[in-house]
Amino acid sequence: MSLSDLIVKPHAWYGSGAGCPIALSSRVRLARNRSDCSFPRRAGEEECERIWNEAEPILRELASLKPAETAGYAELTEQERLMLFERHLISREHAAQARGSGVAIRTDEAVVIMVNEEDHFRLQAFGGGLCLRESWARVDSVERELERAVSFAFTPRWGYLTACPSNVGTGMRASVMLHLAGLVLMEEMGPVINGIQKIGLAVRGVWGEGTEASGNMFQISNQMTLGEREEEILALLEQVALELVDHERNARKRLLESRKTVLQDHVGRAYGILSHAHILSSKEALDLLSALRLGIDAGILPDVERKQVDELLLLSQPAHLQWREGRILSPAARDVARARLIRNELFSKRSG
Amino acid sequence: MSLSDLIVKPHAWYGSGAGCPIALSSRVRLARNRSDCSFPRRAGEEECERIWNEAEPILRELASLKPAETAGYAELTEQERLMLFERHLISREHAAQARGSGVAIRTDEAVVIMVNEEDHFRLQAFGGGLCLRESWARVDSVERELERAVSFAFTPRWGYLTACPSNVGTGMRASVMLHLAGLVLMEEMGPVINGIQKIGLAVRGVWGEGTEASGNMFQISNQMTLGEREEEILALLEQVALELVDHERNARKRLLESRKTVLQDHVGRAYGILSHAHILSSKEALDLLSALRLGIDAGILPDVERKQVDELLLLSQPAHLQWREGRILSPAARDVARARLIRNELFSKRSG
Repeated sequence: MSLSDLIVKPHAWYGSGAGCPIALSSRVRLARNRSDCSFPRRAGEEECERIWNEAEPILRELASLKPAETAGYAELTEQERLMLFERHLISREHAAQARGSGVAIRTDEAVVIMVNEEDHFRLQAFGGGLCLRESWARVDSVERELERAVSFAFTPRWGYLTACPSNVGTGMRASVMLHLAGLVLMEEMGPVINGIQKIGLAVRGVWGEGTEASGNMFQISNQMTLGEREEEILALLEQVALELVDHERNARKRLLESRKTVLQDHVGRAYGILSHAHILSSKEALDLLSALRLGIDAGILPDVERKQVDELLLLSQPAHLQWREGRILSPAARDVARARLIRNELFSKRSG
Repeated sequence: MSLSDLIVKPHAWYGSGAGCPIALSSRVRLARNRSDCSFPRRAGEEECERIWNEAEPILRELASLKPAETAGYAELTEQERLMLFERHLISREHAAQARGSGVAIRTDEAVVIMVNEEDHFRLQAFGGGLCLRESWARVDSVERELERAVSFAFTPRWGYLTACPSNVGTGMRASVMLHLAGLVLMEEMGPVINGIQKIGLAVRGVWGEGTEASGNMFQISNQMTLGEREEEILALLEQVALELVDHERNARKRLLESRKTVLQDHVGRAYGILSHAHILSSKEALDLLSALRLGIDAGILPDVERKQVDELLLLSQPAHLQWREGRILSPAARDVARARLIRNELFSKRSG
């Protein structure tokens, strides 16, 4: 599989779509399993390998996935799998797997299928901004096509069967990634998170379940997969996401009106540190780039382009960074390389 | 008294002298009291006022103080007294006094006499870098001159009598201010401080007794005033200060050799924040300007001049800042004004 086309730039769909730049991306995924094999965790390595070997030629031929790249994880280095994880295309757990697992990626990164993650198939559709319905339509058509070649585990009573009971039913999880830096700076995220959780949606950090909201990025997703129609779930999630985008716009407006100096200080410090630091951890880079992004959106940082910041958000991650440097780096060396990358990018822009 | 000539620039003697730029300044002071009056804290306000009124014309005529400015504290605003404190010319306690206290300042700020601080007279000589002997000679000649006009409290057994027993004897305290940013960054100040204390010298922060070492500025002074000759005290202090300057130079050399990236990061972040922040506390400004100074001395910050940083160290202090702004500011407004001052200074330099 050739990753080199992917990693030099953000996803093809990135940076556009409804609710941009506050809404970063949308994802809809379906969990599906073969009716004639054990779930991956129960199947042995050999059976998993057989499942992957049977799946790969089928996925390759799916019209809705073309043009696609496919790769068994035994063929990919750990670094390459981690890059796919950093691009949010596969889960951290999937990236940690090797023989018997694999992935199919439409080259625009708008459709990705994980094979033998927790379930045999995790069909995913991605898009920029708030685009749940389009993503749903896309993943739905992939699923219909795949269903012609594979017999899915399904019962009329439970719907689609999945390895984890939390996915049984529709097998669908939809999520929206939002950049809520204004609400965080106004210290208003606490009640917002409580409100979202009360209506049965989950709020997570940028890396999904169990992660902190680094860089003021929040992932909102449905919890329920059983007993509700996909369209209802998507409609609720979309409505909440739109409200959050509104809340965030409002918070930014109030920041500019009544706490402009605080905002300028927050953004200015981030710019100053990013353009002059020589050691930067992933976490600090993410937080500071988030502040920069807020400054650009608020119109108080005219020198920097959002596209540039979004690229750095992606390229400054460990695996991307090492790909770019052409070698494996110690964590300390990565922090130095990350600072250099960001410094050069921000400086070259300023003088350009 | 006209302060306007003083506050627009650092002290006339600042920025030169032996051991510069690590040794910032030297001070030698003598505590003296009149034999015919109670110590200031025992004397009432009226007696203090009489003492000041009698002292002022005498001080004005001292040849070793000419040209001098004198001012009773009833004539000065609190802001003006605080400016003298921020210039290290008077103590914080003296700045808090009003009627009955006063000061005489040679216009080059190399000789300053506080009247009715803890003692009737606190004679002080200042100089740039490491210049204890010259300062001692200067304050000694002021003292001899003053002695012709005033009868000092003195006994052959105890020497000069002072309000606090810790000053009895010579009444002399000598101190050197050192910028030990390299030793701090190498985390080696702990044992250095222990070593200094063991030989009977005191290590204090930039504001003297009981203060923290903000901005990596340390004041080394003698503890003993009784039973030792002035020359011996000064020789010991000078020797220790010279050793500290050497230690610091060595620490900076090692930083450059083995931890250059850490140093660049430390200095770069300080530069980035100072040139882009919109809110800066006194403490943070002091710490960051200290890092900048280290960067300049280490040759890794070619864009900024030490003189400029030293000016900002002085001018960014609360009373100086308010004098410059022409009005009293709330602490929050000072933090904004301070950030603006520093930002403008560092930026105007860069583009100039």
